This record gives sequence, structure tokens and C-alpha cells, in this order.
Amino acid sequence: MASPSHDSSRLDNTLAVIRTLRDRGPVARVDLGTLNGISSATVTSISAELLHQGLITELPPDTPRPNGRGRPKTLIQLAPEAACVICIKLSINELQLVVGDYAGQMQHSEHHAIDTLALTADELIALLEEKIAEVRSTALASHRRLVGICLAVQGVVSSHSGTLIWSPALRFRNAPLSALLAERFDCPVLLENDANCIASVLAAQPAYAGYPNLVVIMLGYGIGMSVLIDGVPFLGANGSAAEFGHSKYQPGGALCACGKRGCIEAYTSDYALYRAASDVIELPAGDSAHPSEPQMQALTQLALQGHPEAVRIFAEAGRALGYGMANLLALFNPDLVLITGSGVRGFTAMHDAMQDAISEALVTELIGPTRIASCPWDRDMTCLGGIAITLQATDPQLLMGST
Amino acid sequence: MASPSHDSSRLDNTLAVIRTLRDRGPVARVDLGTLNGISSATVTSISAELLHQGLITELPPDTPRPNGRGRPKTLIQLAPEAACVICIKLSINELQLVVGDYAGQMQHSEHHAIDTLALTADELIALLEEKIAEVRSTALASHRRLVGICLAVQGVVSSHSGTLIWSPALRFRNAPLSALLAERFDCPVLLENDANCIASVLAAQPAYAGYPNLVVIMLGYGIGMSVLIDGVPFLGANGSAAEFGHSKYQPGGALCACGKRGCIEAYTSDYALYRAASDVIELPAGDSAHPSEPQMQALTQLALQGHPEAVRIFAEAGRALGYGMANLLALFNPDLVLITGSGVRGFTAMHDAMQDAISEALVTELIGPTRIASCPWDRDMTCLGGIAITLQATDPQLLMGST
Repeated sequence: MASPSHDSSRLDNTLAVIRTLRDRGPVARVDLGTLNGISSATVTSISAELLHQGLITELPPDTPRPNGRGRPKTLIQLAPEAACVICIKLSINELQLVVGDYAGQMQHSEHHAIDTLALTADELIALLEEKIAEVRSTALASHRRLVGICLAVQGVVSSHSGTLIWSPALRFRNAPLSALLAERFDCPVLLENDANCIASVLAAQPAYAGYPNLVVIMLGYGIGMSVLIDGVPFLGANGSAAEFGHSKYQPGGALCACGKRGCIEAYTSDYALYRAASDVIELPAGDSAHPSEPQMQALTQLALQGHPEAVRIFAEAGRALGYGMANLLALFNPDLVLITGSGVRGFTAMHDAMQDAISEALVTELIGPTRIASCPWDRDMTCLGGIAITLQATDPQLLMGST
Repeated sequence: MASPSHDSSRLDNTLAVIRTLRDRGPVARVDLGTLNGISSATVTSISAELLHQGLITELPPDTPRPNGRGRPKTLIQLAPEAACVICIKLSINELQLVVGDYAGQMQHSEHHAIDTLALTADELIALLEEKIAEVRSTALASHRRLVGICLAVQGVVSSHSGTLIWSPALRFRNAPLSALLAERFDCPVLLENDANCIASVLAAQPAYAGYPNLVVIMLGYGIGMSVLIDGVPFLGANGSAAEFGHSKYQPGGALCACGKRGCIEAYTSDYALYRAASDVIELPAGDSAHPSEPQMQALTQLALQGHPEAVRIFAEAGRALGYGMANLLALFNPDLVLITGSGVRGFTAMHDAMQDAISEALVTELIGPTRIASCPWDRDMTCLGGIAITLQATDPQLLMGST
């Protein structure tokens, strides 16, 4: 009926409509047209096809309009049950599995305490297969199909080849996880760095829309980072770009979990703070090399309450963070640096030393107009980002497969 | 005659033809079509128009063909005299002015020894106006028009606004050079970082075609850097990205020309090497804060010949360079790092310590597949890059103005 070039532009328009519905929730046809620069005839035709495919639904016409004036517009929305994705977040000692629906909302979440460092590659794959199979059964009870799986991993991954190159949560390296799981579950399996998942969620927020060159730093057990350049994640030649945690503060300095010395992570991560503190402060019992959230909360409270040794340790962490940040400003000159992650709990105690270090390290012209801010941590943000990335990646196949 | 959308695709095709002729020299029409995916009818029409505008010429038909077989093809080439650009390279204590013809070749070059650090902004602008006016008179004797001027400057520039933000060659800051000179000479005036000019020349070389993520480091009086991401120069939010020289080796370390401490430049630049050496080695008399090329050659020879103190100083510079490079590998994960600049004269004496430092700083997974290489320095490379960038930027106006 339509020529190939029309098909391709039709697909682009359909994807734009779906993206808008996912970002904004229910929208009227006329607004879908305006927001995407598509004629109303095309929106009508696209929405008819999506209704026929069961990918969208119309809201009942008696839905009250926000301003109460004019003829009510029929709003359309994505059908949450049309499809689902599974996102697995793998971090040190924890596995989180979530189900996201077709509208991008989280419908199920479960956490498993796992001694990740004790796993072999085969054991990890067996564990993932088992857990994903369980979650998939639940998900398929209320969703028509599973369109994709996302593994969001702390560490270095090659998203292109689906290979986990190196993670602080695991002892083994270079595991081709995507291919093995894709074969098992017969759907695309994306492998993403956890910080990139978070950056994609943050970059979509209206508050950060004016910052196309965005650096997101994640403080926590390790130190993660994601860089968006003109809104696009920067991955580097083989996916190991933006490894801020292993850039250097002090040659020959403190020992890092990577085995090298002087990395930013060796001063500012949870384990680094706890290690420095456990020599001089009475702290809750537990694994001081892998401190738990309650352990970190206890230490952070001491710093925020003015315990001199804790204050000194967080200030030294802030200084290392500031020197690392100075390198980021000199090299990336971003519009905005956002600091988040579970370790943002202690950011107030690091802040002044960080700012002092940046001023000590860089002339004003190189600090430039970059804004530096922290944002609250939501432990589900990684998986929300993984859901969004997976739905966006699998939308074309879903549309073409359903035609 | 043609609709606007045809005009825009016609302009793109014409620009592609000109670019090919500039990169490759004389090319037959049929090959211009194949290389750019344009039909031969379009190439014939475009070349007729360019001939009419005097922007290209045909080579005499008796030009011998490389393989001596078949009917000779008529080759076409850019008319060098059709237009010219002027590129001015501003570096510490030196001004280089060159004229580039429409084919991108350097037709005139002159060097002026200038005490750049003594200049006020007004004095620099007056000096540039005087020198550009002289060179323009010469250039317009053999070229039909001056289409653009490029200022290639060591330091931080905002190419977008044409403002020189900060240069080690100058005492003043934040000078809107482009606007002032554009008004005086009635043509576009581009302001570029010198390292970006060099990177654009290197990236166009066939040897480096397979490295889309390219970092170029320039050693010399200062330490410059340019980053190409997927072949496109990365400038950051306001043009001050890629300031490798002021990223950090050692917090609180050696004093840098920028006034801060511990920058990579404070260990690996010409002035840093000479400063470290002048305390312990008998060296040629002269300004040790701004060593001349003969002074640097003398010091470098000592290191290459095994003078223990000189060897130690270059090794320490190599170690700082290696730690800086480790940060680049962790943060940018490039395909290739190319080291050049006048300071590449001493790279052999830094090499082993640099490699040792990278291995000491980073786990193998983060060093990744990045290739690190040096390439010989050509002092005209900056201006050749400036010529290429300016011609490419001004080609559309030239074409549309001549229509």
C-alpha cells in the first residue's frame, strides 16, 4: 500500500507517538500531533492501528478535563498489559529483579541478597536463568508478551557485544551474558552500565532538560559515572569510557578494590570511608570491606553530627572527589554534574572540601559555567532506566512483529 | 527552477564534490559520482556550474593516465586562485600567518617573533589587523577573493562566540577577537583551539581513518589536546573541554603556568622540563621560563644520550604523562591516542616511564584496546588544519554568493 520510504517515516512517527505517551501518560490525539510535528490525519491513522494492535486504549470520554472548559478530548494511553520487560540490577551482594509494563511503569520488584563475589560465571548464569524464569511466569500472567530483558551492571560492559568486561561485584571477567540469556529466553537481552541507566532517567526529567552535556556521578559501594554528550550516552571505543572511580587522585595512594592505588574510589566509596573510619572510630559490627546500608548510615550520622574523625574522613573523601571533578571539568566541560547514588547520603559532609579542592585545582576559566548539584537517591532508578532503555530498543520489533 | 528541497540537496552534493576535490586533488567526473553516491548526470550538471563560477578547472586532456589504458578521462580540480583564506597561529612568543588557496594548499607563510605576554588586548588586535592587512594585499594579488580568516590559538576558546577565553600566550582574558576582526575584514573569522586544527588534519589522514574516537595530545610549551568522538571534535559546554594540560597529576605538586599546582603541564611541558633541569644541569643561556627550540633540543639531546639527571627528568615527565593518560583511557576509552607537538622531540625519553605509569595506574580492562602512538611534528600542521576548517566552513557562502 505504502512505498518503503513512507513505511520508514510512518514507523518513525509511530515510535514518536509511543515515546510521548510513555513520557507523559494519557495525551489527546491533537496534542500528540502538535508535540511531534505530525498532521492530525497521520495521528488518527497511527492511533487507529495502535488500537487495533492493542498497544493503546482510549480513556472513557467522561474523564474530567483539567480546566473544565470546551468539548472533552478523548485521551489515549499505552496499554500497560500489551507487553512487559524484565530488568535485573546486579550490584555487589544484591540482585534486584523488576518487571516493567508497556507504559514504562514498574509492576513488580524483588531483591535477593547474594554473595556475588563467590559466584562463577556459570553459577551467575544459572542463577539469572532461574530468577528470570520465575519472574517471567508472574509477568506473563498479566502481560501479553515479554519483549526484552535488561541487565544493569555495576562495572564495565560492552553494550554492543553484550559482554560483561569487569565488575567490582564479580570475580570473573569477560562473560558474554547477553547471548546466553537471549538464547534461553528468546528475546533481546541488553547489557547496560548501571550509571547509564540512571543518567537516562535523569536526563528525561524536565528539570535537567537544559543540560545536554550531563555528567552523572554515582557514589556508593563503587563510584560510577555516566556522560551524556548532546543528550547521547558516551560509551567510548569499547564501552569502558566514563570510569571516573578509577581515575586518579593520588599516584601510589590508597588501595582501591580494583587492585591499583590512588583511584578516586579508594577515597570516596562506601568501603573506603568505612575502612578509614574503622581504624579510629567505634562502628557497628559487620563486614567492613563491604559495609551495609545501616553501617554506612551510622558512620554518616557521626560525620553530620560533627564527630571530628568522621568529619575529617568525609572531608578527605570530598577533597578526592573535588580533584576528580576538576579533571572532569577540564576534560569534559559539562553543563551540569549531578551527584547521586546511595552514597549521596554523605554528600553534605563532603561538599565544602570538594568545592575547595575544585578551586584549588583549577583556574576559574576552566571551572567555567558548569553547575554542580546533588540529587536524592532512589534505589529503583537504575531499574526504571533499564526498563525505559529496553522498551525504547524493542519498540520497533514489537511494532513490526505485530503488523 | 528547482524547489527549495532540491536546492538543499543540490548544495549538499556540490559541497561533497568540492570536499572530495580538496582531499584528493584532480578526480574524474565518474569517480566523483562513485565516491559521493551521486548520479553522473548530477555530477555533470554540478561541474558545469562550478566551471562557470570559475571554482574548478579541467586538466588538459593529454594528461597521461596512471595505468596508461582506456580512453583518457578528463580530470577536474579546484581552481587554486578562486579564493583564499588566511590562518594566524598565535602561540607563546610567536605569530605565524599563512595564506591557503581554494584547493587547501599553503601558498605563503611568515613567522614573527612577538613578546605575546607583553601585549594588551588592544595591542594584539592592532597587531593582527596590521599583519592580516599586509598578508591580504599579497594574497589578493593572486586570488580572487578572501573568504575567511582563522585564528588558531593555544588555550581555551569559545569557537561558538568567537571569544578567546584564556591562553598561556597572553596575559589578558575573555577577548571577543572574532567579531572585531570580522568587522574590520568583512569576512567570517573563525576562532579555533590549535589542537583541534591539528586533530582535523590528522583525522583526515588515511592511516588514522579506522580510529573514530581519537585523542591528540600536543606536547610543547604548553600541553594541548583534542578529542574526536565518532570523528567530530568534542568541545564541551562552552569550548573548554579537553584541557588535558591542566588535569591533575599530583595535588599540591609542581607549579603550573596557570598558577595552580600539580597539573600534567607542570611536569611534561617544555618550561617544566627546562625548569627542572636548569637547577641541576649546565644548559644554554636564555629565558629558562620560555625555553627556545635550540634550548629544548640541547636538553633533549642530553636525555637521549643518557645524562643521568636529564634521563631522570624526562622519566618523571613521562610518569606524569602516563598518569594523565591513564585518566584519559578511563574517562574517554579512545581508539587511539596520538602524541605530537614540538615536544614530541623528547617522547622517546619519556616513553618507558609513561607506559609503566599507565600499567601502574589502571587494570588491564580499563587500558582496553586503545593504541598509543606518537607522530612526527610539522610546525605548519596547525595552519593547514585552520585552512581546511575555514574553507569547509565558508564553502556554502561562497557557493551561494556566486550563484
